[in-house]
Amino acid sequence: MVANSLHWRVVLVRPRNPLNIGAAARAMANFGLGDLVVVKPYAPVWRETRSAVGAEGTIGSARAVDDLSEAIADAALVVGTTAGSRRNLDRDLVPLDQFSRWLGSHTSPAGNAPKRAALLFGSEKTGLSTEQMSYCHALVRIPTRADCPSMNLGQAVAVCCYELVRAGALDAGVKSQARSPVGRAPAKIHLSDPANLQSLERVLERAARVLDNVGYLKPKSRRATLVKLRRLLLGLGLTNNDVKILGGLLAQIEWKLGNP
Amino acid sequence: MVANSLHWRVVLVRPRNPLNIGAAARAMANFGLGDLVVVKPYAPVWRETRSAVGAEGTIGSARAVDDLSEAIADAALVVGTTAGSRRNLDRDLVPLDQFSRWLGSHTSPAGNAPKRAALLFGSEKTGLSTEQMSYCHALVRIPTRADCPSMNLGQAVAVCCYELVRAGALDAGVKSQARSPVGRAPAKIHLSDPANLQSLERVLERAARVLDNVGYLKPKSRRATLVKLRRLLLGLGLTNNDVKILGGLLAQIEWKLGNP
Repeated sequence: MVANSLHWRVVLVRPRNPLNIGAAARAMANFGLGDLVVVKPYAPVWRETRSAVGAEGTIGSARAVDDLSEAIADAALVVGTTAGSRRNLDRDLVPLDQFSRWLGSHTSPAGNAPKRAALLFGSEKTGLSTEQMSYCHALVRIPTRADCPSMNLGQAVAVCCYELVRAGALDAGVKSQARSPVGRAPAKIHLSDPANLQSLERVLERAARVLDNVGYLKPKSRRATLVKLRRLLLGLGLTNNDVKILGGLLAQIEWKLGNP
Repeated sequence: MVANSLHWRVVLVRPRNPLNIGAAARAMANFGLGDLVVVKPYAPVWRETRSAVGAEGTIGSARAVDDLSEAIADAALVVGTTAGSRRNLDRDLVPLDQFSRWLGSHTSPAGNAPKRAALLFGSEKTGLSTEQMSYCHALVRIPTRADCPSMNLGQAVAVCCYELVRAGALDAGVKSQARSPVGRAPAKIHLSDPANLQSLERVLERAARVLDNVGYLKPKSRRATLVKLRRLLLGLGLTNNDVKILGGLLAQIEWKLGNP
């Protein structure tokens, strides 16, 4: 295993068409990716896909989970895909062909242990929702035409897998010294001691309890505010140690609020 | 229209699955390609595809033709696709991600008029046959894994269209000064006065008549020998003027053989 390596997982969020799940799995196998997670597949779709003749390899080892946070709990890096050109949630919108350079300039070396990275694809009709995008460190844009932006899901997975192979971002991981193609440089994502999504979510839950308690979160805007806070937390590029400190600090506040 | 531009046509050779024709058309539209030709589609498949609800744009203007030579008659450059790593017929086997560089080093400037180039995809089961490959100036290889090389047809088209866009080989055409990534440099393909495939085929037909006449072609190996000759002709990078001279020369030989 090389140093600085990223292990890419493909996450399909609520795909509706069983053919697309199979097509995604096949494209992954073509380009050497083996880790497929499907979030909340419609049950009949999932049964149909898994029972298909020849369902083996990538599709045979694919997992179904109930929500997105479960699919990416162990990921150090989460990247969403979009065909749109709209900037969402202040995320870097990285052209797919510059994604490898983005990785080089926005992540710090991973150290010896390979780290899990997740590439998210939204459902066929709607793509990734704003809330689903809030889990992403960055969004990559597939360079489709403005007059026909929406790709078939299986083809989008194929194009992204090809690009990961082409750019050497598969297993070979992160190149150093590359310059950022987009805007100012935000905090780097620390691959040597990355805060995984699960621990960030726990901090966010604790923060939500505290902010509910102090009346900061209003019922009407609660969900949107938490999405913004998740984005903010992700953007900080926290390490596990940072998260530990932040969690302890919030716990102390929570305790004091309950014991005035 | 920029100078040196290539207009890419996608040619599907005997596709069996109507879903794949539609998927190919959609991927082309996503990346701004509009010229789709299908060689000998199975008739029910073609009717089904064309009558599909929403068959418009690329699929609506797609043409069906009876043989490959008809599909590429007006092409100055013909490129086949393969998932295999076998070198066929001494053709350059160009890794897909280096295809744009190959174009730069193996073609001469196109002049002002945009030239037609064709990208060939074989049928789902078998890919391009040896004879179909003999029409190609080069083969591009999609970098799939040896243990799972065969791509879904629609996904293969999507990946190649993406690469044409990424590498700027779409409309922007040929870059100069690029070095050849593969082996020694063969004769360049003259895009300023290219011999199109139709005129080369006419020369080949005349040559076949002459060689039949003189007993050079043996019944058993006739087809294979003509495939080799086609490859040889293509490899010479002939201009229209060259072809005119060669045709005249053969005509004179043919006349003399008939009038000893």
